[in-house]
Amino acid sequence: MSDNVTIGLVSISDRASSGVYEDQGIPALKDWLDKALVNPVSYVERLIPDEQPLIEATLSELADRQGCALVLTTGGTGPAARDVTPEATLAVAHKVLPGFGEAMRAVSLKYVPTAILSRQVGVTRGACLILNLPGQPKAIRETLDGVFAAVPYCVDLIGGPYLETRPEVVQAFRPKSAQRRA
Amino acid sequence: MSDNVTIGLVSISDRASSGVYEDQGIPALKDWLDKALVNPVSYVERLIPDEQPLIEATLSELADRQGCALVLTTGGTGPAARDVTPEATLAVAHKVLPGFGEAMRAVSLKYVPTAILSRQVGVTRGACLILNLPGQPKAIRETLDGVFAAVPYCVDLIGGPYLETRPEVVQAFRPKSAQRRA
Amino acid sequence: MSDNVTIGLVSISDRASSGVYEDQGIPALKDWLDKALVNPVSYVERLIPDEQPLIEATLSELADRQGCALVLTTGGTGPAARDVTPEATLAVAHKVLPGFGEAMRAVSLKYVPTAILSRQVGVTRGACLILNLPGQPKAIRETLDGVFAAVPYCVDLIGGPYLETRPEVVQAFRPKSAQRRA
Repeated sequence: MSDNVTIGLVSISDRASSGVYEDQGIPALKDWLDKALVNPVSYVERLIPDEQPLIEATLSELADRQGCALVLTTGGTGPAARDVTPEATLAVAHKVLPGFGEAMRAVSLKYVPTAILSRQVGVTRGACLILNLPGQPKAIRETLDGVFAAVPYCVDLIGGPYLETRPEVVQAFRPKSAQRRA
Repeated sequence: MSDNVTIGLVSISDRASSGVYEDQGIPALKDWLDKALVNPVSYVERLIPDEQPLIEATLSELADRQGCALVLTTGGTGPAARDVTPEATLAVAHKVLPGFGEAMRAVSLKYVPTAILSRQVGVTRGACLILNLPGQPKAIRETLDGVFAAVPYCVDLIGGPYLETRPEVVQAFRPKSAQRRA
Repeated sequence: MSDNVTIGLVSISDRASSGVYEDQGIPALKDWLDKALVNPVSYVERLIPDEQPLIEATLSELADRQGCALVLTTGGTGPAARDVTPEATLAVAHKVLPGFGEAMRAVSLKYVPTAILSRQVGVTRGACLILNLPGQPKAIRETLDGVFAAVPYCVDLIGGPYLETRPEVVQAFRPKSAQRRA
């Protein structure tokens, strides 16, 4: 029996949240996670504009009151004035994990040179890991393919549920001492 | 017709600014940009010592009053006590783009292991992108060759002019939706 | 005649410092350095729990009063609540060298995907370079193999002794103008 897990999905976009176009971020995140995770997942979804106080409040609520072990955001990580997702994420962080930002950019850089411009970060808040993903569905998939192997062990270390992945999608890595016996 | 663009070039060196030796940074920056850019460029040049308040004032002036879309600094990014270019750049930053520092170091690391020691950063200030380049002409060229492809789209996103490059020097990358029609 | 050098070795672990298991970090660091350095070395060793104020006080003492040119820590860099080595290191830093954290993670990432989770940093404090190494002896060796080439020139630049390495272990890199004549 796998642990239940609650995952927050936050799409941050002025235009999608006001209905100018349809949000593609949350469906892309959910599609990838449904394929990758063995655990039964409850999703908590939010579609919000690029307003820093609202992003901060949303991230805090998902981590502190909804009990999310993992929160994935999509959108708002570029250099434009309205892009404030990283600022909001850092503002609610307990610990910053610079390796996630570096690795996510390094992965995207294999596909487009403008991956340099992404300011995405990974942080913990209590027992919740928060990762900023890109906005485009294709880039979301590439990034999760590239870094998710390290997510289950990270969630272990901060006191969350034991995440199990389908090896044909992504092989979770844990040191032997941290692996649950079958 | 290409957009006009104003670019700031700031060489930061106690010795070059006091005449102990000739500045090689600004000529190397200008030489590379003249080859790479199609746009008509107005350069604003400054040769100053490694004094943090003066560097901050210079960067702010170039961004805010001279209307530079891009400011390139050279020198002062190492670990020595007098190396304060990154501190000054971060002090005037509106947004930090960590991907530039990472990518510039990764590029230089292909040539010398001591590229690890560079603390160079990339930031925005209003509609201006500020990048810290190395001090040596060779390292300046290698770094610009390695990261400039992402600069034009970054300048677009912060509200600057449309930069066009000569593809034989560097191929500017923009998503299709951001490309100007011929 | 090579310069004398004082090097601080700090193992940070609740369990090793309370005797639950034997510390493996300091022996691994010392073993690597003994093989790599030509200089006569005096080691100053500390085995302490994951307590931020104690780590800060220890690092400051080694840099300021023991005259260490280099301090290597091991342990406490992960995402868990008790992992506070990077926080303590940043708190006593005069300059942060982001290239060390990036490069150390990039090196470890060749071996394990969870290297992303390490929050290790490199900083200077006066004439002392402080680097956070991983906790496992294998990872310590891999990391030092990967980044030490840049350490001697860094120590030069901050005013420390002239470190010389055995080229069969690691080839120190310095620009020609910084190389001492034989």
